[in-house]
Amino acid sequence: MRLPNAITCLTGALAASLATSAAIAQPAATPPRTMDEIVAAAPASAWRTPDPNDVLVMTLDSGRVVIELAPGYAPEHVANLRTLAREGYFDGLTINRSQDNFVVQWGDADGEDPAKAKPLGSAKAALPAEFDTAIRDDLAFARLPDVDGWAPQVGFSGGFPVGRDPQAGRQWLTHCYATVGAGRGNAPDSSNGTELYVVTGQSPRQLDLNITTVGRVLEGMHLLSALPRSLAPGGFYTQPALRTPIRRVALASALPEAERPRLQVMDTGSASFEALVEARRNRADAWYLRKAGHIDLCSVPIPVRTTPAPTAPSGG
Amino acid sequence: MRLPNAITCLTGALAASLATSAAIAQPAATPPRTMDEIVAAAPASAWRTPDPNDVLVMTLDSGRVVIELAPGYAPEHVANLRTLAREGYFDGLTINRSQDNFVVQWGDADGEDPAKAKPLGSAKAALPAEFDTAIRDDLAFARLPDVDGWAPQVGFSGGFPVGRDPQAGRQWLTHCYATVGAGRGNAPDSSNGTELYVVTGQSPRQLDLNITTVGRVLEGMHLLSALPRSLAPGGFYTQPALRTPIRRVALASALPEAERPRLQVMDTGSASFEALVEARRNRADAWYLRKAGHIDLCSVPIPVRTTPAPTAPSGG
Repeated sequence: MRLPNAITCLTGALAASLATSAAIAQPAATPPRTMDEIVAAAPASAWRTPDPNDVLVMTLDSGRVVIELAPGYAPEHVANLRTLAREGYFDGLTINRSQDNFVVQWGDADGEDPAKAKPLGSAKAALPAEFDTAIRDDLAFARLPDVDGWAPQVGFSGGFPVGRDPQAGRQWLTHCYATVGAGRGNAPDSSNGTELYVVTGQSPRQLDLNITTVGRVLEGMHLLSALPRSLAPGGFYTQPALRTPIRRVALASALPEAERPRLQVMDTGSASFEALVEARRNRADAWYLRKAGHIDLCSVPIPVRTTPAPTAPSGG
Repeated sequence: MRLPNAITCLTGALAASLATSAAIAQPAATPPRTMDEIVAAAPASAWRTPDPNDVLVMTLDSGRVVIELAPGYAPEHVANLRTLAREGYFDGLTINRSQDNFVVQWGDADGEDPAKAKPLGSAKAALPAEFDTAIRDDLAFARLPDVDGWAPQVGFSGGFPVGRDPQAGRQWLTHCYATVGAGRGNAPDSSNGTELYVVTGQSPRQLDLNITTVGRVLEGMHLLSALPRSLAPGGFYTQPALRTPIRRVALASALPEAERPRLQVMDTGSASFEALVEARRNRADAWYLRKAGHIDLCSVPIPVRTTPAPTAPSGG
């Protein structure tokens, strides 16, 4: 291997090698650890299981994309997305856009043609803009001490990268790799969740506070990022045949137990996550000759793992 | 369109719509312009034609990848790459790795097996590390005023994003989307250019000053980014059949005139580029409700265009 690994999602590749129980958190005074070591040693309490009512499962022919929604930030959009998923709105629609170093977007390719647009069922056609929300006690904030040019403060809240303006009393989900947002037209309140995009390139933080962000992809980014990228304006596919069919988008809570994703996300308020951030700031890996002493918000991976199978109590 | 375009490479999509001559630079006092407007209005003097001796053309079955080398920063690696290309070293080798949100890497998949490794011909097997270089007069630096957490100063030099430490007197190519570097092992001087990687994810700036960066992809990023991403450790393909064949890597200067890329890069020292940076910092596009008042180094696109055909002088 001639370049270090940058493992940002542990599902699959690392899941098998992770300690599933009896892991003991190391005291802070031990020598620096790598991110992999921290993840492997994280206790069960450092892992959070997303509410299946906040999880969308998108089925493509190539595999599964799992999205965690953020009702704390965009309650109206999330409620609408639950309705859209429950009523099968996205089933049979397509991925319509992949713009290099920017986003992949899906929804109704004919959505802007009233004669052809798919009916919304009982979902709402119009929603308020939800670009940010009030700083609230239920949105715990683990601040990243590193400088950020886009927001007065940045950090993590409930598993999501966020920006924060204490003076204005506002907090918002930021645009990092895998962030999912609701496409809109020029009017701020012109999104309703029927068109979703996910960041596949350099963090487009200029979109922050300009659009409603609704969640984050936990699994399957590799499927979306590797879709053919269109050089047409906006990265839209010019031929319908180039669009990728969406077989189904379902809420995890509506799926039979056996079909639900069994994923856990590292608790961004945990000591393990705090150690991980420090491990990214100053890499302990043997490959690194120089430690950066800095990390950007969007360069901090938020680990995801397959929920460990329950184990019988042992003497270990 | 429900989300603004983020056009980072103008080859193809926009080339046809660009003014090819008689463009007049607008005075700074005019109303804010969008990036597209600035690019379209950039005078011929704002465009630089890379030296064909600094341009590698990699031919894949899917199309062409064009890389501009940076001899000012990594002279030994660039000299070796010229030799490797001239002697056909990369022809018939493969792309061996695509790690989600990190890099794509190519070279000799058997390079670490002495019995199978492809001979280097007259190229050097060992080179010095070229992680950075002295600040020099020939490496003009257009400083980005925005804060950066990774380097004391950042900006652009000769068409590349760079970091700079005036106290140490050093300057280096940074890791942004499309930056190309030379893979190495744990020893700092273990790269020789036979294994190259390109950034396809969130800017891994922690690699800065840890590895030799050799240039930047000017055209064809969409071909590399859309390769299947492997979930195996490091994103290496576990089956040889998954690797993408490289038909040829040639120096542009060694190609017949008709086969050479006809590309120009915006001069990062030009007034047009300065205006572009400002247009990215505060978007004039109608879609944006809030201007960020900030831009990150790796969020500034360095425009590339197809060299305009010579036009007959006109009265315009």
